[in-house]
Amino acid sequence: MQRYDIAIIGSGPAGLSAAINAKIRNKNIIIFGYEDFSSKLIKAPKINNYLGFHGISGLELKEKFKEHIEAMNIEITYERVNNIYAMGEYFSIMVNETIYEAKSVVVATGIEYTKPLKGEEEFLGKGVGYCATCDAPLYRNKIVTVIGYNKEAEEEANYVSELASKLYYIPMYKSNYELRDGIEIVQDKPMDIIGKDRVEKLILSSRQLETDGLFILKDSISPAQLVPGLLMEEGHIKVDRTMKTNIEGCFAAGDCIGRPYQYIKASGEGLIAALSAVSYVDSKRI
Amino acid sequence: MQRYDIAIIGSGPAGLSAAINAKIRNKNIIIFGYEDFSSKLIKAPKINNYLGFHGISGLELKEKFKEHIEAMNIEITYERVNNIYAMGEYFSIMVNETIYEAKSVVVATGIEYTKPLKGEEEFLGKGVGYCATCDAPLYRNKIVTVIGYNKEAEEEANYVSELASKLYYIPMYKSNYELRDGIEIVQDKPMDIIGKDRVEKLILSSRQLETDGLFILKDSISPAQLVPGLLMEEGHIKVDRTMKTNIEGCFAAGDCIGRPYQYIKASGEGLIAALSAVSYVDSKRI
Repeated sequence: MQRYDIAIIGSGPAGLSAAINAKIRNKNIIIFGYEDFSSKLIKAPKINNYLGFHGISGLELKEKFKEHIEAMNIEITYERVNNIYAMGEYFSIMVNETIYEAKSVVVATGIEYTKPLKGEEEFLGKGVGYCATCDAPLYRNKIVTVIGYNKEAEEEANYVSELASKLYYIPMYKSNYELRDGIEIVQDKPMDIIGKDRVEKLILSSRQLETDGLFILKDSISPAQLVPGLLMEEGHIKVDRTMKTNIEGCFAAGDCIGRPYQYIKASGEGLIAALSAVSYVDSKRI
Repeated sequence: MQRYDIAIIGSGPAGLSAAINAKIRNKNIIIFGYEDFSSKLIKAPKINNYLGFHGISGLELKEKFKEHIEAMNIEITYERVNNIYAMGEYFSIMVNETIYEAKSVVVATGIEYTKPLKGEEEFLGKGVGYCATCDAPLYRNKIVTVIGYNKEAEEEANYVSELASKLYYIPMYKSNYELRDGIEIVQDKPMDIIGKDRVEKLILSSRQLETDGLFILKDSISPAQLVPGLLMEEGHIKVDRTMKTNIEGCFAAGDCIGRPYQYIKASGEGLIAALSAVSYVDSKRI
């Protein structure tokens, strides 16, 4: 399996800045993100404080970023990272259908993640999961509930429903749901996950569902869920001025490490994180 | 006297980014710098790692910065700051002919400053000075030596020579020196400043000069000389992640606070320093 030098998680300004700087240093990189780069960026009507661009819209700035990475032959991998495990010498990066490996990681996932549900962290791996397609075989002929935060979750729900005896789908968004027959759509607000050793019930505001498995499919999960063991401080990843986290080889930049939530602050930190990752990778090469 | 909310020292990316962000927050600012903004920037042949601009020259990027600050009606004050004194409630900012006052300060002076001479810090204020025009009256009919690091120093030397009994001019650069008759040009390397309570002699590599006063006129002085009491760490201003220094109300950003010496890192830190200064100023308004 190919082992990348640096894996960058997130395609906002911090992630992109990390990517261009790591690439300039001739590192073999992979960057995970979205076609729109950053949903926050493209919604910004007018940006006046990114030095060099006055009165630019978020969409225009996104186009400038796109031109920049394209000129450097950087391609974004459009996959959602579920988990990153520190294996000692390298990191295992779990996406829905593949495992990637990298010597170092830059976490640049932004701040707009969904707060965990009550019980979610407690039952993670004990019935609660973030990747329905990965874990589906465990739920053959069992009852499964999917809480979907976006349209892509429907596809995963459809897949799991082929194996499960029963599938509840709780959409956290409005859309024309494209779900297989037999899937029960539950329009209700999830409140609490309960059980003894494993998930037994999902409590909603007006009813409760008995369930063997629960998949929570969000746009992004919190950094501490993404990278087990990552030290947080007041809701942000704790880093020093070199963007180093508490996990060796893992760096972070942008909104996920703290305020101010501003594009050029994120870009500056992305550069620092990339150069720190480069030094780290070089120091491991004997 | 007008008291500014925020005085920004330096017109590189850190200083400019601080200026636009402080201005967006409706603060009354003054920014000291150079017409060229940054001698380092304009000399850069090609910059590939300032996210949003690929393959731009330093001069082109400088023009982008210029358009940006002009669109926001920010004007740079082309004066060299000699010293900044923390007065408790405010800062006194000494330039050659004026004293400015500001509630807070952002130091963004870069890293390319001249190392102090042996004895320079010891005799500062005891015969050694950085502003010849300010202190000239003290040296009427006395012997004065000027070490000039740039062409502007010649003007100051000419002025002082009108009062002094003797003026030695030691140029640290090559040029057609435009100096008044009677000024003795000494092409030699300054090594050491000696004396008992005050400056008595300047030791050069091949001769020594008896002198009553010694002016050292450099492009920029080290941050600790600029702001007496400022805490340094390994040659850089010590700051926390909010860009706060050890002096209340004094913030710093860019190369002067540490590596990597990169433009977008400086721009990001300029933003943080400005927003921290804004919070500080607001917290003092009862």
